[in-house]
Amino acid sequence: MKIIILGGDGFCGWPVSLRFSAAGHEVAVVDNLSRRRIDKELGGASLTPISGIETRLDAWRELTGREISFFNMDIALSYDRFLSLLIEFEPDVIVHFAAQRSAPYSTATGPGKRYTVNNNLNGTHNVLCAVVESGLDIHLVHLGSIGVYGYHTTEMEIPEGYLNVKVEARSGELVEKEILYPPDTESIYHMTKAQDQLFFQYYNRNNGLCITDLHQGNVWGTQTPETRMDERLINRFDYDGIYGTVLNRFIVQAAVGHPLTVHGSGGQARAFIHIRDAVRCIELAVANRPPKGSRVRILNQITQVHKVRGLAEMISAMVDGARISYVDNPRKNIEDPENEFFVAKECFPAMGLEPILLEKGLIDEVHDIVKKYGHRCDLSMIPPPQWT
Amino acid sequence: MKIIILGGDGFCGWPVSLRFSAAGHEVAVVDNLSRRRIDKELGGASLTPISGIETRLDAWRELTGREISFFNMDIALSYDRFLSLLIEFEPDVIVHFAAQRSAPYSTATGPGKRYTVNNNLNGTHNVLCAVVESGLDIHLVHLGSIGVYGYHTTEMEIPEGYLNVKVEARSGELVEKEILYPPDTESIYHMTKAQDQLFFQYYNRNNGLCITDLHQGNVWGTQTPETRMDERLINRFDYDGIYGTVLNRFIVQAAVGHPLTVHGSGGQARAFIHIRDAVRCIELAVANRPPKGSRVRILNQITQVHKVRGLAEMISAMVDGARISYVDNPRKNIEDPENEFFVAKECFPAMGLEPILLEKGLIDEVHDIVKKYGHRCDLSMIPPPQWT
Repeated sequence: MKIIILGGDGFCGWPVSLRFSAAGHEVAVVDNLSRRRIDKELGGASLTPISGIETRLDAWRELTGREISFFNMDIALSYDRFLSLLIEFEPDVIVHFAAQRSAPYSTATGPGKRYTVNNNLNGTHNVLCAVVESGLDIHLVHLGSIGVYGYHTTEMEIPEGYLNVKVEARSGELVEKEILYPPDTESIYHMTKAQDQLFFQYYNRNNGLCITDLHQGNVWGTQTPETRMDERLINRFDYDGIYGTVLNRFIVQAAVGHPLTVHGSGGQARAFIHIRDAVRCIELAVANRPPKGSRVRILNQITQVHKVRGLAEMISAMVDGARISYVDNPRKNIEDPENEFFVAKECFPAMGLEPILLEKGLIDEVHDIVKKYGHRCDLSMIPPPQWT
Repeated sequence: MKIIILGGDGFCGWPVSLRFSAAGHEVAVVDNLSRRRIDKELGGASLTPISGIETRLDAWRELTGREISFFNMDIALSYDRFLSLLIEFEPDVIVHFAAQRSAPYSTATGPGKRYTVNNNLNGTHNVLCAVVESGLDIHLVHLGSIGVYGYHTTEMEIPEGYLNVKVEARSGELVEKEILYPPDTESIYHMTKAQDQLFFQYYNRNNGLCITDLHQGNVWGTQTPETRMDERLINRFDYDGIYGTVLNRFIVQAAVGHPLTVHGSGGQARAFIHIRDAVRCIELAVANRPPKGSRVRILNQITQVHKVRGLAEMISAMVDGARISYVDNPRKNIEDPENEFFVAKECFPAMGLEPILLEKGLIDEVHDIVKKYGHRCDLSMIPPPQWT
């Protein structure tokens, strides 16, 4: 197949691009390299020494003989160039990772809020508009977020996107409806993902576009079989207070002898998935294209749910001398201090996903990544910003 | 009170600005004059001879001694200028009409889609972001659209924004939830209004902003007591296939002896409100600020529901010799050919609204506006575009 990866230089996009190329597909990466620019803006860097995109692609060609083409393009700004690329490349699939993906970045400052809204919404809409205008029969696979559901304790299990409800009719009878699960988001980033869902509903119903929307959890882990082939292919590992996930922060803190900083009571339940499983889910989503005329397919791309304090305890048990420190929660006015998170996740295992569990995979992460690159850590990057 | 009217040069914004000024409030109009620019782009013009904004404001000062200040500003592009205006003017209320409001314009062409998304979403978000950054305790009153609900026959009466549903819990019991009515939109314009709702939910919950969102129906009629005071104050009357509402098109067609063109069977039920009632609703929304800590207040700003063919029949009965012609529906793949529209509209009458009914008001419209200005009509502007 011919596959365009939007955001193909990023943390998820890079290993996905390599996987599809390794599997024999014709891959084009589109990326504006904004994640690298934001690293400079924030004064941080990946713990792992990631190479520039050209070095990455040269190394891949050298190692495998396979060519991945690269287009330095901002899909939120360069509509005509993007449309021309579609018409020329004629992709069967577009995988869309091209969003500003940090919840703290999107919420801590006014410029961060406005950039995230402008970039994420125009980016997604330009893709949809260009697919219609190209006239091509493209399957769009979009990386959404499990955070669109909101992290609250619910009486029901949160389904994969669509919820059955009963509503009182004018006759007084209860009638059944199936609706998009009502979003309830705690950051500007997550809000844009909820708004993306409305773009997808519209373009699916009115223009018949074929769309899969993946509600992904926190991704942990760094390497995949492809990125492990050569250090020039290494994937990014963010541990700072803005782009680092809670797990990566804990791992780095443990490795350098800093207490694991749990925000509030650590009773927040969150959903997780390993980067290798995330890549596998994209492969499965692409291999299982929704039939013609389908509604938007929504899948929950998560494998486990854990509470933050449970993660801290797991890591402190793995690393000698790692202590836990409970600190004031910078999001305490926004998130529930304690919650359960009951969420359906049957679809991907039914397609063949075999999850890598935290209990087993974490120890590799500590050994492979942090022991090797821990000296690159800048502890001053870890404290999170206050949300506004 | 100090009131900023965003889009205060437009069809609804202009009479609202005059009303608040007449009532003794300090009014500032913010407008980028985009509606006048789009008239030029489309080669059309208001049937009524609207004056330039400066002439309008000079006439108002001359007639009443009251000053309305004007800022030519694009809120989607000029964030810093807008924030400075808030800090300087210190408004108690912002009334937000500043959107590209034509469903056909937003859906017929790629550039129209992208402009509408970019303009409407960044515009609304910049307003919210600036209100937070200003630190002022502002009541935001936003003109949404009744079209966010979707024009379908529903078993239940569509409520004012929030719907009670029952959901099956993990225990098997049915539990009650109150959710935002699930949107289902038929144009890009309406989709942006559904996305605006998610902005409002977010900023209300996370930043405590005070917001009223008005789901307005098709507005008919032209003049209000203020715009009628002098021809230099006259309000706009759109009758073209892109900005003209169905009623205005029928009125003009009847007046110039053209058959009334009903799309499809005319079985589409739509919601209506007279411009004077729309102005009154904004006054009532401003006078009834939601109490501190309230969720977003959503009100349905409509007074009547009619089927399109019923409107055509009403007008043909009022104007001698007006025939009806049923033509192919340019939106036939998008809208239901026949529907009922059961929608709650109790809140505004409970606040004191006394609706002007079509059956009584239409005849004035034909006499006052179309008899006087019908010679300015360009029939070639009436056919609607095909939606893409």
